[in-house]
Amino acid sequence: MKLQPTLRLPTHSLPQGPFWLKEKKTFSISGFKTLEGKALPDFELGYETYGNLNEKKDNVILVCHYFSGSSNAAGKYAASDMEPGYWDALIGPGKSVDTEKYFVVAVDILCNVCPALPMVKTVGPSSLNPSTGSAFGMDFPQITIADMVRAQKLVLDSLGVEKLHAVLGPSLGSMQAWQWAADYPEMVERIVPVIGSGFETSNFVAAAVELWARMLKLDPMWSEGRYTSATFPMAGMVSSLEMLTWNCLSPQWTEVYGFKALHQLASQRAQFIDPNHFLYIVHAVQTFSVREKLKDIRAKALVIAAESDFLMLPEFSKQAVQECEAQGIAAEYFEIKGQGGHLDGLFAIEQVGARIANFLGAQN
Amino acid sequence: MKLQPTLRLPTHSLPQGPFWLKEKKTFSISGFKTLEGKALPDFELGYETYGNLNEKKDNVILVCHYFSGSSNAAGKYAASDMEPGYWDALIGPGKSVDTEKYFVVAVDILCNVCPALPMVKTVGPSSLNPSTGSAFGMDFPQITIADMVRAQKLVLDSLGVEKLHAVLGPSLGSMQAWQWAADYPEMVERIVPVIGSGFETSNFVAAAVELWARMLKLDPMWSEGRYTSATFPMAGMVSSLEMLTWNCLSPQWTEVYGFKALHQLASQRAQFIDPNHFLYIVHAVQTFSVREKLKDIRAKALVIAAESDFLMLPEFSKQAVQECEAQGIAAEYFEIKGQGGHLDGLFAIEQVGARIANFLGAQN
Repeated sequence: MKLQPTLRLPTHSLPQGPFWLKEKKTFSISGFKTLEGKALPDFELGYETYGNLNEKKDNVILVCHYFSGSSNAAGKYAASDMEPGYWDALIGPGKSVDTEKYFVVAVDILCNVCPALPMVKTVGPSSLNPSTGSAFGMDFPQITIADMVRAQKLVLDSLGVEKLHAVLGPSLGSMQAWQWAADYPEMVERIVPVIGSGFETSNFVAAAVELWARMLKLDPMWSEGRYTSATFPMAGMVSSLEMLTWNCLSPQWTEVYGFKALHQLASQRAQFIDPNHFLYIVHAVQTFSVREKLKDIRAKALVIAAESDFLMLPEFSKQAVQECEAQGIAAEYFEIKGQGGHLDGLFAIEQVGARIANFLGAQN
Repeated sequence: MKLQPTLRLPTHSLPQGPFWLKEKKTFSISGFKTLEGKALPDFELGYETYGNLNEKKDNVILVCHYFSGSSNAAGKYAASDMEPGYWDALIGPGKSVDTEKYFVVAVDILCNVCPALPMVKTVGPSSLNPSTGSAFGMDFPQITIADMVRAQKLVLDSLGVEKLHAVLGPSLGSMQAWQWAADYPEMVERIVPVIGSGFETSNFVAAAVELWARMLKLDPMWSEGRYTSATFPMAGMVSSLEMLTWNCLSPQWTEVYGFKALHQLASQRAQFIDPNHFLYIVHAVQTFSVREKLKDIRAKALVIAAESDFLMLPEFSKQAVQECEAQGIAAEYFEIKGQGGHLDGLFAIEQVGARIANFLGAQN
């Protein structure tokens, strides 16, 4: 395969500041039951807001995060931070999602895979089970994309938000965007699912994430989820992330940088990820579908895929748009060009900024 | 992704007989040293021949097998056999590789991954180490594609063959075809590498097979290769083959049949595969390259890829053909159409039969 020396490592290489500074906010949730009726312990959910809520409260854009992301969508916490939030190229004052115009809200998902990061506030298998005094582990109730969305709704309720001008999100975030449109059709006016697999997880993607989970579970240190920090299943976690990274970058990328680079990226990330949380998110991905609710959707959809995505194939997004149109949903397809694979939905998002800005600005 | 109800399970569904009956032959090799200078124990190598060697001994076609294949390339051993050899649609009397015209030879590779199958005769980690009386395990010398080819050469020498009209092979077999052309340029007139990754293993493919190996090694039952039949690392082997199968079928296939079908296929195959042999073949794939020997090649090449191949991407074959042309090698590219993924190089081979027949029949 032809070498592309311009390919870059998948790290944020965004224009240097000035970035505005932001703070992590938290919202306390108690009495939350999953849709399956299982009670979660009381917990704090992290979120961030950028811009200001207007008087009519009709300028709200919700941004949902990807598999290993967080509500750290834009801006920095301190000027000295190495990197801003993952979609900083898209979101900010004067940017395509203009925070001088829109009030942007980003919320951590339930079972966020990096519960120990200071910028993440979530609940999941690593949380203390009040009835035992130790971590839930695999006894934590299974959660779905719909549960994530219901938790986000509580945060928006607390802010007095009743309408969403748009819900945006890459990858796992795209699933949340579809779920929002399906579960709260009166509330959601637009969705921008980016690098997703359409309105339900394809069997192809479900198989890929199953293999990620298998890597982890094969490590005897995983011990059915009863590891400690001293018995962390590092080998399984690293292998799992090697495959995830191999899936999320393009063949061209792997061609140029090779397996050692995949291993290095995986090793760097493994230390921040909780294996059980990872498995819970795999389950949420595998069970995602709003196919049966398509008829409820009122939102317009701008569906964006990445040309070289080797996991969430552009074909999945194109197919979803076709099926939406057949259901009377106003859906458009747009493609990010590049050779960065799935991650182009994060690192090349500026390429579709104008397209997103037009979609957000268009009158109904 | 659009459902394709015509997709079939990856099993031989070839036209019913009559198939000619054949026998497995064996050739005894002693004193074999790998190119790295490591001695192998004496062993028997399995091979099959179809058709008759002509007087000038210039009608020989060598067929090299794929990762989990064997010298069982065509025909049946008994009329009651469920299936003929993997390329029976291509090879036989009156077929594209016409055994009324050509003398076809197929040889088992060193470290064939199915050493316990009655149709396979090979040597590898499962062989007895004469100096210990138990299996070599991971103490067996590492072998390369070049070593496989050198062993095949001994079989051909014993038959008095000094010219190869052509060397054909799918996938791992394509690597052997390139190696033959590079190492014995005076002997090889034509090569037909099918569903390969060009004249060297791409980093993308090397990463994929590394992940297959990682799956196996994560299983504690693997025990650095010191398992027994009673402690066989089945979980790791099945997961490894799940990923292999996911790689070797197309996204469309997985879309239609889902993960359960991948699991079923993997489980069926796991019992026949020796995990250590599997790891040795992974190593052979990862170290394959004849880039430095391209200038030696005299053979003409017909390089065939499968349109929906998601492992050995058509791009790899196209790139190889371009680079060969730049080196003055007469190389052509041809593509199998279909949605069966990498395995279309086995199960849809009849589609390119006429193209291969023309290539074989053309005058130099």
